Amino acid sequence: MNQIKEDIKDYLEKIIKEEKQAARDGKIPEYIEKVDNEDHGAVSMAMMGLDGRYVQAGDDEGTFSIQSISKIISLAVALMDQGEEEVFKHVGKEPTGDPYHSLSKMELQEDGGPLNPMVNAGAIAVVGQVKGSSVDEKFGRILDLTRKLAGNDKIDYNPEIVKAEGHDLNRALFYYNRYGGYINEKHDLEDVLPVYWRMTSIEMNIKELSRIAAVIANYGVDIETGEELIPRDVVRVLKTFMVTCGMYDQSGAFAVDVGIPAKSGISGGIMAAIPGRMGIGVLGPDLNEHRNSIAGIRLLRNISERWNLSLFNQ
Amino acid sequence: MNQIKEDIKDYLEKIIKEEKQAARDGKIPEYIEKVDNEDHGAVSMAMMGLDGRYVQAGDDEGTFSIQSISKIISLAVALMDQGEEEVFKHVGKEPTGDPYHSLSKMELQEDGGPLNPMVNAGAIAVVGQVKGSSVDEKFGRILDLTRKLAGNDKIDYNPEIVKAEGHDLNRALFYYNRYGGYINEKHDLEDVLPVYWRMTSIEMNIKELSRIAAVIANYGVDIETGEELIPRDVVRVLKTFMVTCGMYDQSGAFAVDVGIPAKSGISGGIMAAIPGRMGIGVLGPDLNEHRNSIAGIRLLRNISERWNLSLFNQ
Amino acid sequence: MNQIKEDIKDYLEKIIKEEKQAARDGKIPEYIEKVDNEDHGAVSMAMMGLDGRYVQAGDDEGTFSIQSISKIISLAVALMDQGEEEVFKHVGKEPTGDPYHSLSKMELQEDGGPLNPMVNAGAIAVVGQVKGSSVDEKFGRILDLTRKLAGNDKIDYNPEIVKAEGHDLNRALFYYNRYGGYINEKHDLEDVLPVYWRMTSIEMNIKELSRIAAVIANYGVDIETGEELIPRDVVRVLKTFMVTCGMYDQSGAFAVDVGIPAKSGISGGIMAAIPGRMGIGVLGPDLNEHRNSIAGIRLLRNISERWNLSLFNQ
Amino acid sequence: MNQIKEDIKDYLEKIIKEEKQAARDGKIPEYIEKVDNEDHGAVSMAMMGLDGRYVQAGDDEGTFSIQSISKIISLAVALMDQGEEEVFKHVGKEPTGDPYHSLSKMELQEDGGPLNPMVNAGAIAVVGQVKGSSVDEKFGRILDLTRKLAGNDKIDYNPEIVKAEGHDLNRALFYYNRYGGYINEKHDLEDVLPVYWRMTSIEMNIKELSRIAAVIANYGVDIETGEELIPRDVVRVLKTFMVTCGMYDQSGAFAVDVGIPAKSGISGGIMAAIPGRMGIGVLGPDLNEHRNSIAGIRLLRNISERWNLSLFNQ
Repeated sequence: MNQIKEDIKDYLEKIIKEEKQAARDGKIPEYIEKVDNEDHGAVSMAMMGLDGRYVQAGDDEGTFSIQSISKIISLAVALMDQGEEEVFKHVGKEPTGDPYHSLSKMELQEDGGPLNPMVNAGAIAVVGQVKGSSVDEKFGRILDLTRKLAGNDKIDYNPEIVKAEGHDLNRALFYYNRYGGYINEKHDLEDVLPVYWRMTSIEMNIKELSRIAAVIANYGVDIETGEELIPRDVVRVLKTFMVTCGMYDQSGAFAVDVGIPAKSGISGGIMAAIPGRMGIGVLGPDLNEHRNSIAGIRLLRNISERWNLSLFNQ
Repeated sequence: MNQIKEDIKDYLEKIIKEEKQAARDGKIPEYIEKVDNEDHGAVSMAMMGLDGRYVQAGDDEGTFSIQSISKIISLAVALMDQGEEEVFKHVGKEPTGDPYHSLSKMELQEDGGPLNPMVNAGAIAVVGQVKGSSVDEKFGRILDLTRKLAGNDKIDYNPEIVKAEGHDLNRALFYYNRYGGYINEKHDLEDVLPVYWRMTSIEMNIKELSRIAAVIANYGVDIETGEELIPRDVVRVLKTFMVTCGMYDQSGAFAVDVGIPAKSGISGGIMAAIPGRMGIGVLGPDLNEHRNSIAGIRLLRNISERWNLSLFNQ
Repeated sequence: MNQIKEDIKDYLEKIIKEEKQAARDGKIPEYIEKVDNEDHGAVSMAMMGLDGRYVQAGDDEGTFSIQSISKIISLAVALMDQGEEEVFKHVGKEPTGDPYHSLSKMELQEDGGPLNPMVNAGAIAVVGQVKGSSVDEKFGRILDLTRKLAGNDKIDYNPEIVKAEGHDLNRALFYYNRYGGYINEKHDLEDVLPVYWRMTSIEMNIKELSRIAAVIANYGVDIETGEELIPRDVVRVLKTFMVTCGMYDQSGAFAVDVGIPAKSGISGGIMAAIPGRMGIGVLGPDLNEHRNSIAGIRLLRNISERWNLSLFNQ
Repeated sequence: MNQIKEDIKDYLEKIIKEEKQAARDGKIPEYIEKVDNEDHGAVSMAMMGLDGRYVQAGDDEGTFSIQSISKIISLAVALMDQGEEEVFKHVGKEPTGDPYHSLSKMELQEDGGPLNPMVNAGAIAVVGQVKGSSVDEKFGRILDLTRKLAGNDKIDYNPEIVKAEGHDLNRALFYYNRYGGYINEKHDLEDVLPVYWRMTSIEMNIKELSRIAAVIANYGVDIETGEELIPRDVVRVLKTFMVTCGMYDQSGAFAVDVGIPAKSGISGGIMAAIPGRMGIGVLGPDLNEHRNSIAGIRLLRNISERWNLSLFNQ
């Protein structure tokens, strides 16, 4: 067992070393670099088996904000709260792999609704579906699930990151959603957006990220306690969007080239779930033109090919 | 064994009966209704196991033109001819689930290239990658693979359907592709488009369609002869596009709701491959607003839920 | 003189009678019908010469809200306050005659800025350029100019109309503008939008509307007092936008067919200025698919052809 | 009289000298540089009064291809051949000032038709409306009008330029137009596109260009012979499109800043008509990002302000 772990660790260290140079050509968004204290060229990767075995390699960057990765968790909460039918009255299911849609960075359908729960407009509409009578209660429920998935009840959001983020585009999307009925007219901006801003500012380390992925890979069942944290049917929906919309406008290429359900964030993190096998966390803050971690994409492609992990090759 | 087949057949007959009424509200494109001699409300479904067991239920409509389903076969030929790297210099990998892209029915990226191999512009660019010194040779190689996959070397295209189809939009897409370099400048319109028109006019029955799906479900290996008709890596790519782009602008919803790699055509056919298990053919000519078979979608959703077939629930 | 007035009045009554039936096929937005108390099929027209001669014909509908017509007045104030160079750092100069741009009803350029001062996003950015330390002061300055142009210092906005209008789309546009820097970050929503909502809710009668047009036709000089209410260079800019963007996505056709600088509003009013000759006000609440008054367009085309009023035929 | 001419010439020489440096930062399309033998930084300007007085200043570059300027002449022929109503069944009247529309450089409306007669798709549809039983006859009629307008019956097109131009995008637009019914289905590509290619390759010098503008400024009447070359109603339509769509996606800014009916071409020429006063030709091959002559725009703005030429200031 330990030998296997050592071999895997050696392999990961080897490929991380190979990819570090390429990664350095990427860009780190200014506010992320500052609030997450990230280093150009830093790369780390973690794997957690469904049996709890854990391997980590690369630089240890400590904690980072999960950003868009949180959209998977809030979607899980909304689906558990309202059911599929209700949630998808407020957000579409269709991917877009075309930067063309980034017109105004709105990513809206012609008839006005948000395209899917992974674009910002859609994620805000999804937050509008989370139950709770206050921002604290709504966010508390998302945070609670995050803590359970990550196996650490100390995890929290960082108010400094909330402050550092741009807010006006999100405000525009909130009102645009409410205008179209995708957010209920009873909700005020202050009921919804602080929840969104806090959830994207949740901080964790790469081990915790890999554990969240492991629970998703384990069909929603906690890999240690055996507790069902997310119903299997909800996990199915999460994994579908991770494949069709998880990597911004690079999702289609990632599906062809890597084929692993995954979600990226602008801080350079990627959470990837290999169903029935393991969870993976990667952190490489240098981003490509699609806003995905350069090193993350390359490392996941490498191991997908080496260990035949593509969902489309099973 | 026979009892299982009988039970499945009974179940299929039962659900076809249930869906027939709903299907009748759809539309059949005029020229398809004429050339394929299709009936409003007709529905049939076929399943072929990887062990060759075969079940069919519903109306027997004889042969029909496979239309866009042929894009999967020509993509297979192009990938076998040129390799992934070369083919994807000429066509993108990104899905679009948004009718917004149907601006001018062009479905092009902002920078001009075809979005993916399943939209018409992309399929034409893919045909430009098929080897052969003449239309007959290029089409012959696509037809040859189709016959082997379907297990019937009598299968052919119907020249009456070629005549009935609209051609000017395809001509526009050909020149648009050549303008952008997605079709090599050495190719003339008459070298490429007749291949495309013939392949979409290939006729077969539903049993043959289910056999093609079965070979894809069998990772490219012929379920009777054991011959590798398509390399496994190419099959992986085909299945990826079937999931992300197989059902026009309903692909995202189909992935969430059904989760089976599938490709639809405007004649109402759907080819669906359950990896490692079986191939499915459905025919229901009445189409919904996304140009997919109403009955086909409903039947596939029904059996996906009943037998847990979603790729995203494995 | 009186004979000429009588002849014109007779002619206007005659053509109004002809157009009334066609107008009835249009639509009146529900909230406009209610707050402006408008009647299907009502049509009235007013002409004011630069010498003060005045002719009115048709139904007398009393006062109505000027809606988008107010965008011309706020643009005048902003240009007087900041100058051309500064104002056009915040809003584009390019027309759009394509409903395609109505994607999300945002009418934004690819790079994010509002297309021109006549689309809603652009008009909101322009309001952000009006000087004043409070909503009351900013709106007061727009209202003051409106009163002078209309020759009635009792003119005011109707708070009931402000309440009846939809607000969320405007809020989205405000934040979208501020996100892109088209509204200064020091401005809060509550500093800007109430000004916009009030100005669109200003009520007047058709004689007053024709007087505003007459002052524009008189190069900004009050036709009675001789006071320069708007500098000639600003009037030149106003007339340019009235021609290129004044009639929503029918502006191009209106330029070809009618050729008169004009601005329409969703309440069915149109203000049209014949440079050096007269101002015209029309009210016909039934709208065509471009949101322009059906009767208004037809009447203006009729008199443009009869009296050779097209700017492009001089 | 001669003194006035001298003064104007001096002024033009002075402002040309001022603008030459700025112009040099522009780009000359490679094939234009070659076939038209154009020089970076060359600038020339010509004015022809309706009384025949003529002033020219700057570098004498000889002849150049008129490119898109020819769209005005073919539109005149089509309108004379078919009338306004028929022509505008095949092409829209709406401007677009947004490069966003250049998606695929198609500039099509959402419902598929060409936006206006000045975009390439629209100009091709207009050529489809020119009468004639052959390419030679159709082009002959456009060339004949061009010669009369320019006052030189030796003017012709340059076959070398036809060869040098890219053709595939035009072919795509032809078929796209025919698909949508904007080109009659009885027309083949070879009936229409050679006419378009030849007309854009017509060569003339700047004096001849200014004479065409002078006839338009003279309401269609030849300034020497007094013959009506184009009916006044057609000239009105031409001037409208010159204002709303004449300068590509800079038309709106040009209308605000300059306000002169004008049409530019990719070879750096601009034809500008001051109604009732004079015709202007400018040539400056260095183009800005909107594909307009940098020097041309600046010179026209300069004289518009100096001599109060804006249509919107009359």
